[in-house]
This record gives sequence, C-alpha cells and structure tokens, in this order.
Amino acid sequence: MKKLTDFKTPIFLDYASTTPTDPLVLKSMQPILENYYANTMSIHNLGQEAKDILERAREGFAKLLKVNSGEIVFTSCASESNNFVIKGIAYAYKNQGKHIIVSSIEHPCILQSAKWLESKGYKVDYLSVDENGIINLEELKNLINDETVLVSIMHVNNEVGVIEPIEKVGEIIKNIKADRLNRKVQTPLLFHSDASQSFGRVNLNVNKVGCDLLTLSSHKIYGPKGAGLVYIKKGVKIAPLIHGGGQEFGFRSGTINTPAIFGFWKAAELAIKRQKQDFDRALKLKTKLIKTIQSKIKNFRLNGDINSQVPQIISLRFDFIEGESLVYLLDMNNICVSSASACASLSLSPSHVLMAMGLKHEQAHGTIRVSIGRFTKKEEIEYFLKVIPDIIEKLRNISPFK
Amino acid sequence: MKKLTDFKTPIFLDYASTTPTDPLVLKSMQPILENYYANTMSIHNLGQEAKDILERAREGFAKLLKVNSGEIVFTSCASESNNFVIKGIAYAYKNQGKHIIVSSIEHPCILQSAKWLESKGYKVDYLSVDENGIINLEELKNLINDETVLVSIMHVNNEVGVIEPIEKVGEIIKNIKADRLNRKVQTPLLFHSDASQSFGRVNLNVNKVGCDLLTLSSHKIYGPKGAGLVYIKKGVKIAPLIHGGGQEFGFRSGTINTPAIFGFWKAAELAIKRQKQDFDRALKLKTKLIKTIQSKIKNFRLNGDINSQVPQIISLRFDFIEGESLVYLLDMNNICVSSASACASLSLSPSHVLMAMGLKHEQAHGTIRVSIGRFTKKEEIEYFLKVIPDIIEKLRNISPFK
Repeated sequence: MKKLTDFKTPIFLDYASTTPTDPLVLKSMQPILENYYANTMSIHNLGQEAKDILERAREGFAKLLKVNSGEIVFTSCASESNNFVIKGIAYAYKNQGKHIIVSSIEHPCILQSAKWLESKGYKVDYLSVDENGIINLEELKNLINDETVLVSIMHVNNEVGVIEPIEKVGEIIKNIKADRLNRKVQTPLLFHSDASQSFGRVNLNVNKVGCDLLTLSSHKIYGPKGAGLVYIKKGVKIAPLIHGGGQEFGFRSGTINTPAIFGFWKAAELAIKRQKQDFDRALKLKTKLIKTIQSKIKNFRLNGDINSQVPQIISLRFDFIEGESLVYLLDMNNICVSSASACASLSLSPSHVLMAMGLKHEQAHGTIRVSIGRFTKKEEIEYFLKVIPDIIEKLRNISPFK
Repeated sequence: MKKLTDFKTPIFLDYASTTPTDPLVLKSMQPILENYYANTMSIHNLGQEAKDILERAREGFAKLLKVNSGEIVFTSCASESNNFVIKGIAYAYKNQGKHIIVSSIEHPCILQSAKWLESKGYKVDYLSVDENGIINLEELKNLINDETVLVSIMHVNNEVGVIEPIEKVGEIIKNIKADRLNRKVQTPLLFHSDASQSFGRVNLNVNKVGCDLLTLSSHKIYGPKGAGLVYIKKGVKIAPLIHGGGQEFGFRSGTINTPAIFGFWKAAELAIKRQKQDFDRALKLKTKLIKTIQSKIKNFRLNGDINSQVPQIISLRFDFIEGESLVYLLDMNNICVSSASACASLSLSPSHVLMAMGLKHEQAHGTIRVSIGRFTKKEEIEYFLKVIPDIIEKLRNISPFK
C-alpha cells in the first residue's frame, strides 16, 4: 500500500458530481476545437463540415440508444435538458392536461422546474420512495389521472445510487395509454427519465423502457462539460426552452457547441465499451470499502440496499457525526467526497433524497457520498479506509449528538 | 498577390457567424480542461479550486465591464442569455407591467422570445429602424408607457454591423425612470442590450450606457463555444430560465463549464487589448473591399451607412442577383461568406433586418454578408476581390430579374 505522503494530489472520490474528461476523449476533441469552429448553420463548406461532425454525433447517439437520429436534441447540460422537458411538455400540452408526476428524489433541476410549474397553475405530485429509495409503483398507478401529461422518474439517483424500476414504470404507462385510447381520452401520457447517472453504469434500453423522453449528460460520463441531450420520441410535442435561430429542429436554439458535442459522443461510446469493466471494478472496490468500514467502525450503515444500487455511488451513514465536518476532515487528508449531491452541498437543509427515504434529520446529516469511477485506484480506496476510522473517532469524541 | 491555387484551404469571411477560438485562448484553456474538472459546487479542495477559476473569470469580466462581480451571471451562450433576459424580466415583473419593446432588427433569439411572451399574453412592440438600420428614438419615447418593463436594443447588429445609439437610449430611459419616480409609478423600466457583436469591436461602457442588463457571447470574440453571460445590475429581479441546483446566484442552474468560462474571459481580455488594432486593420480591409467592388461592379450598394457601422461586418448588395447563389459560387471558389445571419441562412424568407431597413424583397435577396476578423489576411480579401466580378457577371447573365 502507498504511504500517506504519496497522496499529495487530492484523491477524487466524487465522480457522481462530475467526472474528469477522459484523456482519450479530450484528445479526440483537439482537432475539432482547432479546426471545426464554423457555425453549423452556415451553408458554406466550413459550416457544412462542422454540421457533419454534429450529425455524426447525433447518429452515433441514435445508434447507441437504438433510436432515430431525428429524435436526439443536443443541449448545454442535463439541467437544461430537464428544464426543457418538464416545462416544455407542460407548456405544449397545457390545453390537454396540467398534471405532472415526478419522484420525490429527482435532481433539483427537475424538482425546481416542477415547483415553477406549480407557481404557474400546474398540479404536481411527488411520488414517494421506500427506505431504499425505490419508487412506489402502486402509488404511481393511483396518482395518474386523465389530466396527467407527464411522469418523470430518474433511472439512477445521484445521491444514493438506487436504480429505479423504470421498465416497470414504462409498462404501467403503456397500459394506461392503451386504456386512454380505448376510452377515447385525448390527453397524451408521456414518460421521461433522467438517465444522467445511469448511462454507462447500467444497461439502458430506451425501447424496452418505452420512455418518450430521456436525458443524458456529458460531464457525468467522462465527456466535456457543456453538452447534454434529450431523446424525444417522434411525434411528441414540446415547447422550446431557448427560442431563436431554430437549431436542433427548432427545439434548442443557439450556436452549436460542436467540440463539446463531439466529445460527448466519444465519451458515450467509450462508456458503453467500458461499462462492464468499469462496473466490475467499481463493485469490487465498493464491496471492499463497505466490508472494511463495517469491520472497523461501529454505528455505520450503507444507505439503501446494495443490491438495487450502482456500485459507483456509495452513501455512507455514521451515527453521531456531522457529514459536512467529515467531508472537511477528509479533505484535509486530501480525499474529496461529498456531503450530499454537489448541487445541494452548499445548502444547510438535509438531503431531500435521504429524507424521502425516511431517514431522520441527524441520520441524513451524518451521511457522506463516496463516488468512485474509472480512474479510482485500489490504493486510493485503501488510503481512504486507513484514514477514516480515526477521523470518525475524532468527530465522535467532540460530537454533541452521542 | 497569392495565386488562386494557393487558397485550397477555405477563406473564412464569416466571422460574424462565429469565430475560431484564438490559439492563445485555446492554449490557456488546456490546463483547465485537463485539471480543473471538479464541480464548483463541491466544498472539497478540487471543487474550490475550480470555483476559484470561475470567480477569477467573474472578477475579470467585472473589471473589463467596470461593474461588480456579483452582477455577472454565466450562461451557455448568447441565445440562452437573451432568452433568460427577455422571459426572465417579463416573468419577474408580470404583476407590474406586461409590455416590452425590442427593436425590429434584434437577433432571432430576442424576437422569438418576444413572440413567445406574446403568446402568453404580453404586449410587445417592435421598434422600427431607418434605411441605415438605426432605431427611431422618437418612436421609442412614444412607445414607452407605464406598463413597459423592458426595452431591449442590440448594440451592434449582426447582419449589417450598424451601431445603435444605445447611450441615447440609456438617456431616454433614465429620464423616464426619473419621471416615474416623480409620479410615484412603481413599475420599473429596465434596459437590456445584446452586445454579442460589439464587445471587442467598438467601445462599450456599461455605466455610460446605463443599461440594467447586457449580453455577451464567447464564440463571437474568439473564445470557445459554450459560454455566454448576462450582466444584471444589482437590485434587478429576474426569473431563472434554468432552475435547479442554484448555481450562479440561483439565476442559472447547471454544472459550471469552467474551461469554457475561463476561455471566454481570456478571449475577452484579448479582445479589449487588441480592439484598436483589430478595428484599424478591419477598417482598412473594408474600405479597400468596398472601393474595389464599386470600381469593378455596377449596380452595387453597401447596405447601410459605412460611418455608423463596425468595419468587421459588411453587407453587400448586388442587383439582379440571388445572394444564396452568390454564397454557393463563392464557396466553390473556397470563400466562406453568408447570405444573411447564419441563424437565418437556412430559411427562404428574406432577412428581417434588411426588410426593416426598407429594402425590397429582391434587394434583400441580393445581399451577402462578408465579415472579416482577426485572422483575415490582406491576400484573402484580394483573392475575394479578384474572383467576385466574374461570379457576379455569370450570375447576372442567367438572372431572370434583370
């Protein structure tokens, strides 16, 4: 094992918040950054060359997702994609129904978009989850009514790594669609899934899931920041979030970020190619990590059920501890983890995900997220496991909770 | 002069549609792309290092614009910025007034956002321009009423390069604000300017203009694609376009694209540093270009008044010609120009800018935009001037219009 002093460079165990761009991806982007700068909307040679890159990326994603290339719309990030979907569907079908359902553990960009719609007169229901973070399918069935136009359930949660049963959701929605058709109810029922945290980690079969819309993010899969996409099934109406020059079939205006989109595509290909290998390595590291902590530290729990989680996201709960303090002390030992999701980490309120899973305030506050990735070395996990018991003991000694 | 055959690489005369990233900027971004990948919202070391880069860029822009760093909000592009401003101001002040005014020659992202608001019950007025593309200030005064919450006038137009008198607009708005205050009218009147095409080309003094909001774009100033910003004066309320994790003071959620924002800042510094030099070179090239065409080609006009334009954007009108065909033939000679703006170039309708300037359909259709930039060589303009007379003659010979 490496010595403590070997880790002067911080150990990054925060892959769920963002990933470094894979060097292979970065290298592939260089010629695009340098030469394919023209505007994809320009009809001249250089413009059309840039457009070719864009369309190759679009076709590449269509192939990876087994959908049509005309169903892929690029955006600047997953937050934009999710805002676009939630608001865009609500606006487009407002005359047919103003009810949407999202899970209570969605990313803030979904939840805040839903809150925005509530302030505009829409009705939103927030689907509950069990102690493992898994959505309640019976409740979903009961919540859907003839005013419901959209159900949005994430594939993998960013804080605890739980894999949601989106194929079962797809099945439920398919049946209700059939029933509406029978009853001649005109309101469409659409199913969206935010797959930002699942793509490249677990299998994702759009056709099997039967979703109408799907979100992916580049910087979560070792691609560059600045690119995301939405799969929009042919025939689905959606209002643009960003109006203007009419790029992306009129669904997302703004000059195309060709280098980022190209890198996103290359990252996606690599993620699929490496999925099994990355998964297996992560699972080994996660298993070792949990077993070791269990053997060394008392009053510890893994949040959620390991069997329904991706191995890359590990939510660790220590009683009598303030997770924030733990993050700081680990940071002083050159280890980067998160207290919750990065987006929520500056807020003082407890994680909405952990609260939805039924944790008490102090349990949610006693949680850290360790997320491992493609470049995580065994030695880094060993170092983490070496330093954490002392830190926990130190924090518990000064804890007012114990 | 170089021979024809020397230009096998296309000559890019379409800098108004987008610019290549300056090699100096690209080089400065490399370490950020490789090492500063962490999420700026993460509280650990690597996250805070990324946040430092972000805040340095923010302070850099504040210094360049002589505003406070807390007044700079980064976005993914100018289209997003402009959608955010137009819709966000309208939504934020909807209870105080539902009237906005934009010029009729704004970029489509402003015009389409305004149309979107019209569909939501807002009233929009489209300010007319004279034959040179300059807005009518008297009309502006008359259009503003106590319901008006926003006036949006671009600084430099993307199609003809006309510089709008935004300082005079600022003066008018300042007086009306004072009058409203006197009359105890609560409705605020805000002034936005899209300066995407002016920054680094002509002087821009936010305080002298007195605007409340301003848009800048990275890829128009030799920065990378994927970054834009909005200056939002302290105290101005605005609804986010993209809700979520609360980045950018809650005004723009989504994981921060640190490398692009850093590059944007470096590009902005360079643009200001090189402004005079780039301007003088462009003016020389533009003067030569126009004089030469005037001497060689009949029935030619520069659209607008050269004295109220930036030298980098040149709108050339040839009678009895289809601009689109001219773009294609120039492209076959390895010269990249645009028929109108890139965003409108795939549409068959005539340029809304040229029509607003009072051109006839066939005059608008007979126009091409030549936009020159930092890397335009004298030889490239000479080559353009050498090939264009024959092309015009060829097209006129087959023209049904003549």
